[in-house]
Amino acid sequence: MPETQLSLARQGKITAEMQDVAQQEHTSPEEIGRRIADGSVVITRNRIRQEVESVGIGRGLRTKVNANIGASMDYPGLEKEIKKLKAAEEAGADTVMDLSTGGDLEEIRSAILESTRLPVGSVPIYDAAVQAARTTGSIRGMTAQSMLAAIEKHARIGIDFLTLHCGVTRDVLNTLAHGRRVTDIVSRGGRFLATWVAVNGKENPLYENFNHIVDIALEYDVALSLGDGLRPGCLADAMDPAQVHELMVLADLADRARDAGVQVMIEGPGHVPLDQITSHVKLQKEMCKGAPFYVLGPLVTDIALGHDHIAAAIGGAIAAAAGADFLCYVTPTEHLSLPDEEHVRLGVIAARIAAHAGDIAKGVAGTRERDRAFSTLRKNREWEAQLSQCLDPTMARHYRETGKSHDEGVCSMCGEFCVFKIADDETPAEV
Amino acid sequence: MPETQLSLARQGKITAEMQDVAQQEHTSPEEIGRRIADGSVVITRNRIRQEVESVGIGRGLRTKVNANIGASMDYPGLEKEIKKLKAAEEAGADTVMDLSTGGDLEEIRSAILESTRLPVGSVPIYDAAVQAARTTGSIRGMTAQSMLAAIEKHARIGIDFLTLHCGVTRDVLNTLAHGRRVTDIVSRGGRFLATWVAVNGKENPLYENFNHIVDIALEYDVALSLGDGLRPGCLADAMDPAQVHELMVLADLADRARDAGVQVMIEGPGHVPLDQITSHVKLQKEMCKGAPFYVLGPLVTDIALGHDHIAAAIGGAIAAAAGADFLCYVTPTEHLSLPDEEHVRLGVIAARIAAHAGDIAKGVAGTRERDRAFSTLRKNREWEAQLSQCLDPTMARHYRETGKSHDEGVCSMCGEFCVFKIADDETPAEV
Repeated sequence: MPETQLSLARQGKITAEMQDVAQQEHTSPEEIGRRIADGSVVITRNRIRQEVESVGIGRGLRTKVNANIGASMDYPGLEKEIKKLKAAEEAGADTVMDLSTGGDLEEIRSAILESTRLPVGSVPIYDAAVQAARTTGSIRGMTAQSMLAAIEKHARIGIDFLTLHCGVTRDVLNTLAHGRRVTDIVSRGGRFLATWVAVNGKENPLYENFNHIVDIALEYDVALSLGDGLRPGCLADAMDPAQVHELMVLADLADRARDAGVQVMIEGPGHVPLDQITSHVKLQKEMCKGAPFYVLGPLVTDIALGHDHIAAAIGGAIAAAAGADFLCYVTPTEHLSLPDEEHVRLGVIAARIAAHAGDIAKGVAGTRERDRAFSTLRKNREWEAQLSQCLDPTMARHYRETGKSHDEGVCSMCGEFCVFKIADDETPAEV
Repeated sequence: MPETQLSLARQGKITAEMQDVAQQEHTSPEEIGRRIADGSVVITRNRIRQEVESVGIGRGLRTKVNANIGASMDYPGLEKEIKKLKAAEEAGADTVMDLSTGGDLEEIRSAILESTRLPVGSVPIYDAAVQAARTTGSIRGMTAQSMLAAIEKHARIGIDFLTLHCGVTRDVLNTLAHGRRVTDIVSRGGRFLATWVAVNGKENPLYENFNHIVDIALEYDVALSLGDGLRPGCLADAMDPAQVHELMVLADLADRARDAGVQVMIEGPGHVPLDQITSHVKLQKEMCKGAPFYVLGPLVTDIALGHDHIAAAIGGAIAAAAGADFLCYVTPTEHLSLPDEEHVRLGVIAARIAAHAGDIAKGVAGTRERDRAFSTLRKNREWEAQLSQCLDPTMARHYRETGKSHDEGVCSMCGEFCVFKIADDETPAEV
């Protein structure tokens, strides 16, 4: 079997990627290696991918942000997706995922891989479902073989991490059926597989063939991102038996993957009341032996249509502070429409604010220092430096320019009553 | 002395305002009366104000949202402020504050009071400082008399709650001078008073004349909002000795106000690391014997220029969950320029998301139920009902319309792969 970052780390070997990550994260390559070896850090890089950033995700590292892009049936164009990719990069996303379910899936996937140096993730079951719908008229037309073929195809083209809903097993679905959910299943991958299981009366092929999936992952050193197909789709469904049951299955599969030398992350919710987020993150970390936790939001309310990036930023910040390692952004158009490039931008920035706030709370090296240095610029009214060093220079410049003051030394909110100007001009040095 | 909501509550009397609040908050007038009597709830209503909503702020009640409006030197017009007022109302603000420091202050203040049924707050020291700057060329021209006159003037015209930075005492400023702050004082009222104290070598007139202020408040039943003039202006300054020292003073003044029958709230930060927010709220609640806590943000990072409404929503949600009762919004243009009506709208909505998320966490009656009912609409793909019942129908409709799907039963993100549609169309009832 070929070596992976994980198998090499276990042998105490330091790869170029570990060195890159160590440098970015203000730690030593040996420390990164130790964390990869114990499964608490992954580096999402397909072995055959050229020209890709080394991105480390996990314990003690800066919380990373993923931007989902991808075409849909209603907006199937490639060009728009490349614009969204560029918007995500410019806004500071650490990774992107191609979730296309419309247009020429292979063309879009290849174009995204060729157009970015960021790690790229995908969800092969979408591919299998869309192909089945196109050829047989329904997602029911998927087969175990077509699902596994999609996984292998994505790995072979260079995808760096794969979301696989292996935990949607018959047992877990039985637990779901005995529950009282308001919104049932809201993960697309989870829904596709649950439907397939129901129609065919057979076990989830991604669960049954997990050893084969592990072999594919080993060959390409693709990181597995074990999807939470039963993540809650509303606050009322959070932390119900079906969700916890699936997490038990994922914890076991994570063990199996790591034992084989495959890097693995766990995906998490979703919609979660604010007061349950910290305990949920702790539960995942304990059950999955410190595997990196990749959360979608979480959204702290169900009713923020048009502003779900904010509902997600609240939950994401709390999750990151509690130990979540990787935030999947949510855009303002979530639950309403496919995002365009401006929505992608807003989603990435909101998630970066959440990640940074969480990093400050959990003590990630360099984060508090960045805010302190920035605040000194604010006190000294060094406007240009603030505009270039803040999280979103584009938006900051826009507001500063459209809401100008006649006095360039202050802003138009306080004008001559600027607290820092008064301190400089009006206040005696001694009280 | 005339009776106040507080003095009446202590006598076990139920006012029309207590009845209104009880009805809005799904509790009994007697319970509201008990909380007013123990100082944990206030109703912000000036006795002479006609046609104003009864808004209760405090323990167990829905977390309220305030929108700051007001003209500045660079944008002194009245018309723009009325537009911002209307934007705040339409977006769902519970109160507004007029923080004008430019234009015709009296005209703007009166016009705002006449144009809204929401409780209106103000900061009389701004008035005194601006008049001093206009007549003497500097805020140093303020006098103890001019400050007290401004307070009386605002009460007499019908302002419902007054922010007063009574805690910026010489002792507290001495503590500040011995500290190591990065951004010194960032509250404008705090800065004005600290400068006055430094120039004149005398005690803060709002502290020295607190009994007189209490008399004014009694006469009009104006709620006092004891301002945190030394609130931290950056994460590095949070919870320093100066801030805690001022809070000690405010706790004492709150006692004195309540003893006299005056309703009182305490104001809080500001910029606070995410992991310190909960303990800060608990500290305030304990030190101030359960007085309603009115926080500005708090912002969980200093570097989110252009998106500070999001940084504030993260902190505000955590604060509300921990027991904060009243969130002052922050707009996207904070630290950059005076907001316009669209920024006001975005700020109010972000704060309402935070308040609602906090209310769900702290178990405010009806909040979880609202999200549950909404999620049932989502599952049933009842689009029109979702658009009208979400937190911001305007934005939700905009995104739904500009990102249309060809199939009105779904949205353009998932199209035919909508999880709810698949569950309806494709999944056998039995697994």
